[in-house]
Amino acid sequence: MIMESSKYLYQSNISGLMPHQELSYEDKKKLENLSKLSKLFIERVRPTKTEILNINKYSSELIDRLKKVLPENVEITLAGSTAHGTQVKGSSDIDIFMLFPRSSNERAMEEEAIKLSKNIVREKEGEKYEIKYAEHPYLKLINESKNITADIVPAFKIGNAKELITAVDRTPLHNKFIASHLSKEMKDDVRLLKYFLKMNKIYGAESKTHSFSGYECEILVYFYGSFPNTIMGLSNIKLPLVIDVKNRKFLEDDSRTEYIKRLNSNFIIIDPTDPNRNVAASTSPDSLAKIILISRRLLSNPTEYNLLGMHGKSSFRSIREMLKNYNLSIYAISINVSKEIHEDTLWPQIIKLENQLSSEFLKFGFNPIISLDGIERNKAYLSFIFEKTTKSINLLKGPEVFINGGAEKFYEKHRELGEVFIRGYNLYAIEKSKLHTPIEVLNELNINGKIKIKDMKEGSEIKIFTEKNIPKEMDSIILKNFIDKTTL
Amino acid sequence: MIMESSKYLYQSNISGLMPHQELSYEDKKKLENLSKLSKLFIERVRPTKTEILNINKYSSELIDRLKKVLPENVEITLAGSTAHGTQVKGSSDIDIFMLFPRSSNERAMEEEAIKLSKNIVREKEGEKYEIKYAEHPYLKLINESKNITADIVPAFKIGNAKELITAVDRTPLHNKFIASHLSKEMKDDVRLLKYFLKMNKIYGAESKTHSFSGYECEILVYFYGSFPNTIMGLSNIKLPLVIDVKNRKFLEDDSRTEYIKRLNSNFIIIDPTDPNRNVAASTSPDSLAKIILISRRLLSNPTEYNLLGMHGKSSFRSIREMLKNYNLSIYAISINVSKEIHEDTLWPQIIKLENQLSSEFLKFGFNPIISLDGIERNKAYLSFIFEKTTKSINLLKGPEVFINGGAEKFYEKHRELGEVFIRGYNLYAIEKSKLHTPIEVLNELNINGKIKIKDMKEGSEIKIFTEKNIPKEMDSIILKNFIDKTTL
Repeated sequence: MIMESSKYLYQSNISGLMPHQELSYEDKKKLENLSKLSKLFIERVRPTKTEILNINKYSSELIDRLKKVLPENVEITLAGSTAHGTQVKGSSDIDIFMLFPRSSNERAMEEEAIKLSKNIVREKEGEKYEIKYAEHPYLKLINESKNITADIVPAFKIGNAKELITAVDRTPLHNKFIASHLSKEMKDDVRLLKYFLKMNKIYGAESKTHSFSGYECEILVYFYGSFPNTIMGLSNIKLPLVIDVKNRKFLEDDSRTEYIKRLNSNFIIIDPTDPNRNVAASTSPDSLAKIILISRRLLSNPTEYNLLGMHGKSSFRSIREMLKNYNLSIYAISINVSKEIHEDTLWPQIIKLENQLSSEFLKFGFNPIISLDGIERNKAYLSFIFEKTTKSINLLKGPEVFINGGAEKFYEKHRELGEVFIRGYNLYAIEKSKLHTPIEVLNELNINGKIKIKDMKEGSEIKIFTEKNIPKEMDSIILKNFIDKTTL
Repeated sequence: MIMESSKYLYQSNISGLMPHQELSYEDKKKLENLSKLSKLFIERVRPTKTEILNINKYSSELIDRLKKVLPENVEITLAGSTAHGTQVKGSSDIDIFMLFPRSSNERAMEEEAIKLSKNIVREKEGEKYEIKYAEHPYLKLINESKNITADIVPAFKIGNAKELITAVDRTPLHNKFIASHLSKEMKDDVRLLKYFLKMNKIYGAESKTHSFSGYECEILVYFYGSFPNTIMGLSNIKLPLVIDVKNRKFLEDDSRTEYIKRLNSNFIIIDPTDPNRNVAASTSPDSLAKIILISRRLLSNPTEYNLLGMHGKSSFRSIREMLKNYNLSIYAISINVSKEIHEDTLWPQIIKLENQLSSEFLKFGFNPIISLDGIERNKAYLSFIFEKTTKSINLLKGPEVFINGGAEKFYEKHRELGEVFIRGYNLYAIEKSKLHTPIEVLNELNINGKIKIKDMKEGSEIKIFTEKNIPKEMDSIILKNFIDKTTL
């Protein structure tokens, strides 16, 4: 059967796939099957009419309240998935932007915005609020009885990207683009894509997941044309890839190279509202790798099981059993953090520390097999899993010989302590280890006060654990992280 | 002081340095100092007049004898360092080429050449011979009382490189080039360069050392103009580097790229007698790295100590002490080889086996710190030094996700045996190890009969040793190899 719809026509000999050209029979068959699965699933992920009605009603109400407290020259805009109509069932959150005149002083605008938006919170009616910090501080209004939260975010009113001050100011432009470019069907397909990524734990651009943002999902579905097409496009990704969304084409040759250099990435989705913005900027290699893998799997076998990412071994063993099974060691640390700190502020600190520690371990010859991280209830956790080992020597990789000075310095530094030799163009040195296990590295660092994060709780200390003394609740947090990481 | 001699003028902003442009004051000073040291040293490395007289007399005699036995249409040419006048004191060897007409059948020519050259050996006068195998078989005449050896090598008579059949046929062309292009001073400087490399154990292009050939030394001195200039040129090498000797320039841009592709190397010295030949073809990265390092050292500190490469710790400890000191393990094998096999034939086999074993070790997670090799008295030796360790798991690096199929295969293969996860764009798997120490890997391979070399002595077996049972003579061979490798 030859499919007629232009939705399923592709160009196939470039990275990713573009709507315009004929597909192979097999690929058409795959798209057709995935399309059937999508139709079944869309009911699960599209909010009910009542849910949409309620959320729209509540957001209108909040906007009305804001209108009463804000000066006349501040424009109020509904943004995000609620405005776009791309929210997934049961997770409807409201984003409201207050657009201040471009002429305002930034700090003064921020202060006024928070002060004024506090005025709309009706605590007697069960509404609470928190102040959060993104590029501008904003107010998060929480209505627990309605199970709705609303972010009330200040920004500058701008006509186009050239007037941009901070990233958040771009959001109304996105709002406009989606409203005028995505069809009703595409919006349903965005919901499906978001749900698929959520179930596979790669939805969200925040510091923790470094995955795919809601806007990124919308843009992908717009670019490829539908959910099945997006899945096929993703499954065929080869890097470097630069997607020119506005002109609906893949960049090639010089123009591609230019973007890669300018935006310093080899996976770029050019924001149709701003050519200087990579919509995929916060998408990590791990997340990109995973979306390719699960897209390919879903396409070749379009089952509920694959859509829901149910590939984890249903494992009830403890982290201790897992370690014993493979004869591994674990070293973990926990840090009490200040109560007021938002996860978005904390995550970059945790990840920085995780990288610092990993490179300290490596410096002493200990290569963590997996490092895990978590934030729960005012505590940050890091854990590192190693093959059980005791080191007596370090094998140090020195510089290549070509840089005059570097090789000589390495040689002079290490010749007295051990043996120096050449392998390929690099110098190497063998030296006796001072630190024989990862815990000795951690202790050494701690003593020197090198382990720290900015938002640690004052007066508290970083605690170090080995498998012998990991508390039970930490054990289960680590195991959860481990299972997340190894569920492909 | 501004030096006048054009010998010390360079162009300095490209890889290596070229005679043509002004040098900095510091670089001139360095060349001047190295030049002084060279003048002192040249007397040590230039053969005495008597030595040269004797060698020339003996080579003339051998040529006369050959003339009497060879047909008239075979041309006889003296080649190599004796012909070039670039031999180092005390190591004067003779290379004589018998140039057969291009029309001869190759095998017939080889047979005749060996048969006829045997006729010139005067065993009664204490001369012996061996048949050696290079591209053509050749006769090595040994005169122990005179302490001279002479290689009598057959080749085809050709006018230029286009008529070339085998590499050895090119030698007379080299002969001609050196004779017409190298001054007396340059020849002395070649002697110095050869001596410098010899003392630092990177002289010789044969399979064992993979270093710098005599011809390569001659070409380098011709190109740079003198020994000090060569040292400065080498000390500034950055890759990729393509030296166009004939036109005395470094290639750049497209013409460089073309040579790099065609000759499949990023360190190329184009043979002035044949543009399709890389004079540096058998120079390994390790040797190139070392020449850069020692050149830089000699240039910044031109002392006898640095010229003679006396950087080894004068160590009399045994390999056992060394291993104990660093808590290392050693695994060694010895192989009896057929008596008739020439080292040049054996070395490639040994090195191939060494690489095979290294990758087998790596496959099971054992990364040899150093591997060592040696051939002595009809035995080939290999040894691998490891950090003392017992492995319980394997961390396997899988493919990048971009190739459709590869990642899926890896996932399916390893998910049942262990944990699979993503790091960057790659899949990784942790699995329980079947082999826990390197000796288990060696035993496993041996049982499967995978360890073998072509020229093993028939009926003998490969022996495997650990530090517990390494025989004393093997101990000292390994130690010597180790000291050679770590003497920088």
